[in-house]
Amino acid sequence: MDSAAPWVDDDNAALLVDLYELTMAQAYWRQGMSQDAVFSLFIRSLQPERNYFLACGLDSVLRFLENLRFLPEATEYLSSLGMFSQEFLKWLGELRFTGAVHAVPEGTPVFPDEPVLELVAPLPQAQLVETFLMNQIHSQTVLASKAARVVEAAAGRAVVEFGLRRIHGTDAGLKAARVAYIAGATATSNVLAGKTYSIPVTGTIAHSYIQAHDSEIEALRNFARLYPETILLVDTYDTLAGARKVTELAQELGEDFKIRGVRLDSGDLVQLAFEVREILDQAGLERLEIFASGGLDEYRIAAIVERQAPITGFGVGTRMGVSHDAPSADTAYKLVEYRGTGRLKLSPGKPVLPGRKQVFRRREKGRFEGDVIARHGETLPGEPLLRQVMAAGERTPAGRVSLEESRLWARQQIEALPNSVRALRPAEPAYPVEISETLLTYQHEVAAGVRRPG
Amino acid sequence: MDSAAPWVDDDNAALLVDLYELTMAQAYWRQGMSQDAVFSLFIRSLQPERNYFLACGLDSVLRFLENLRFLPEATEYLSSLGMFSQEFLKWLGELRFTGAVHAVPEGTPVFPDEPVLELVAPLPQAQLVETFLMNQIHSQTVLASKAARVVEAAAGRAVVEFGLRRIHGTDAGLKAARVAYIAGATATSNVLAGKTYSIPVTGTIAHSYIQAHDSEIEALRNFARLYPETILLVDTYDTLAGARKVTELAQELGEDFKIRGVRLDSGDLVQLAFEVREILDQAGLERLEIFASGGLDEYRIAAIVERQAPITGFGVGTRMGVSHDAPSADTAYKLVEYRGTGRLKLSPGKPVLPGRKQVFRRREKGRFEGDVIARHGETLPGEPLLRQVMAAGERTPAGRVSLEESRLWARQQIEALPNSVRALRPAEPAYPVEISETLLTYQHEVAAGVRRPG
Repeated sequence: MDSAAPWVDDDNAALLVDLYELTMAQAYWRQGMSQDAVFSLFIRSLQPERNYFLACGLDSVLRFLENLRFLPEATEYLSSLGMFSQEFLKWLGELRFTGAVHAVPEGTPVFPDEPVLELVAPLPQAQLVETFLMNQIHSQTVLASKAARVVEAAAGRAVVEFGLRRIHGTDAGLKAARVAYIAGATATSNVLAGKTYSIPVTGTIAHSYIQAHDSEIEALRNFARLYPETILLVDTYDTLAGARKVTELAQELGEDFKIRGVRLDSGDLVQLAFEVREILDQAGLERLEIFASGGLDEYRIAAIVERQAPITGFGVGTRMGVSHDAPSADTAYKLVEYRGTGRLKLSPGKPVLPGRKQVFRRREKGRFEGDVIARHGETLPGEPLLRQVMAAGERTPAGRVSLEESRLWARQQIEALPNSVRALRPAEPAYPVEISETLLTYQHEVAAGVRRPG
Repeated sequence: MDSAAPWVDDDNAALLVDLYELTMAQAYWRQGMSQDAVFSLFIRSLQPERNYFLACGLDSVLRFLENLRFLPEATEYLSSLGMFSQEFLKWLGELRFTGAVHAVPEGTPVFPDEPVLELVAPLPQAQLVETFLMNQIHSQTVLASKAARVVEAAAGRAVVEFGLRRIHGTDAGLKAARVAYIAGATATSNVLAGKTYSIPVTGTIAHSYIQAHDSEIEALRNFARLYPETILLVDTYDTLAGARKVTELAQELGEDFKIRGVRLDSGDLVQLAFEVREILDQAGLERLEIFASGGLDEYRIAAIVERQAPITGFGVGTRMGVSHDAPSADTAYKLVEYRGTGRLKLSPGKPVLPGRKQVFRRREKGRFEGDVIARHGETLPGEPLLRQVMAAGERTPAGRVSLEESRLWARQQIEALPNSVRALRPAEPAYPVEISETLLTYQHEVAAGVRRPG
């Protein structure tokens, strides 16, 4: 039996790291290479069909950095591997994160090569936190970016996050509800997310409840009695017959019938929505909403919306919660400066912009019209995106943003994007991102330095 | 700021549930519907290109059921939602899981419609655990099934799990290392997984370490001095030049040169492997291994193996860790029996096999030749796959299986599959799975009963 507890928490998260981060950290420490390094976390390319990423995960990162510590249980395990000196493990046991973090706020649209986050810290520290930072920024950004597309497709109709049962694991399950909310989802079915993040929680009823009763109408009646304003599932046996049972129930209950709507979860949702709408309307139940779920994503929702199906809300699960068509992105966390000198690697197809950077986003009549990635310290037209969110290991005021603020920020930012960038298909031309003259010159200088023999 | 702790643990996992499970549970409880129910967890269809699933996640499920409890903090939150009576919340606060679980062992290949797990418990309990059970069985089975393909493609070469930085979240990051190990991976880079599950941990060196030094050879020398038997990364600036530096280092260190190999992480891995092999061989370093990483999956590994590239091991990250081409599966957790009566729903395209079941797997000359899904209690030729792993809320001996046992079991089971089923492309014909006459008859009986008006 796997005897050890399987949960990740503040006591063991420091060990959620690739082994080489620890061996490299020990090497840096032994070699006295503890000057400040700058690592830049960015995404190399857009995902298929996507035009932008919605940056998320910063809050998890800052919390991790604030709490980073290697407990005796951790260093004892590391000692057992026979790779680490007792002196290094003692240093590790006393380690706290003392660096600075500059990042775009959660809910900011970002484009390839733009830093999502830059971390300035003594080299061993900056190296040690790589894996966790990437894990959280990657998964939360990928899931938020997908959710933003679903919300876009729904064109103002409600999107409820339903994905927990097929999202990868408990942590992503929790975070997915949070980032979907930032991206504009209205609620989640995930109760722990509701509690943890004060997100509205909602839910309807499952087929099992209907099936556990000897008749469908008895089940609907019982549920409506206990939850008068619920949404009733009607597709367990036959969707249209199920809808008619709801009208029977309305007649039976008279003024006590306060049901808000019905849910369709299978079949041709557009066709069924029209037919169910007619059944409800003919029974005088015009006010009942039709809610749809079952294998939905941005494409299916866009098709439903385009055909003007009378559906007012969508429950969206798996395809959003695992970002089904693009479950990963080419994130990178790269050393870009050490001891004040710009660094880059020259591996084919993977260019890196050296040194600390800032991104300036220009607006024209309220709409974003282009970005410039610049060296830190440059002042260019437009709004600078990166803010200092942590200094000397502690959050700055800019690092303390409420979830509601992030959600509002995301909404404002997405609405300022060009329509072609918000669209579900690749924008032509792509959103313009330039590199400043100063940064380009610096990149050439650093590359020339790296190419010298050695 | 999101003030609540973002971790999931034994104290709050009970709330990691879709809201409707709780509203349904309250309805059952109020209506006195607390007789035993049977829920069956199965997968409706194969994923694209796949021929089987490797069932995983049972240990997490059993642990969850053993520890299930709603703490006062949880019931207080639920109370705040205004949907639950104090009597129900009191009942919930005292709830412990008292049911039985029958499941296939972790590491068992399973096919569509075959139960991975059947749970027998009072209806409210069985309903409440749906979301968590699906979350864990789904993600661990999807990731294990992908890992089995990668191991298959590597054809005996080492596969090291490298995915943590892009796997979705911390929990899947931890479990992915575990299930990859069950599927046959040799090690992981994930230190916490190593500690938690006693999996071998390994790692090489990152580009950042090379870049932090003023010259590549100095970096290689320093790392080799501290970790004499490490694997050196050679592609930071130019792979062939990097390999030559390793040969220089070998000359320089003489008998102290104990490096095990080099790692290639970019470019045309096959071409570079041949060229690097030649450079190493000409320097008398025939014993050095070439290890490859960078965007690998089963298809790329199969191509490398087919071209007989001199690569002895693979570091496989993102594409395995998110099951990139198929990040979800159509898992279902369905009520199949209540109060001794078979149940099913008739939603289009989603048939369910009613009642408790068993799967019999027949062998011919050591190889599996076909399965029959039968009613519980039937005795048919072949090996029964489902075992009772929990009784009255406690694990049976069959529910206590070590990770090494699961890994060995998976290896034996996979090796007994027909070659066409182990292949990376769809088997033609598919592995035969039949439904027993008795079960078919029962399904018709139940369907006839369900179709009666009501």
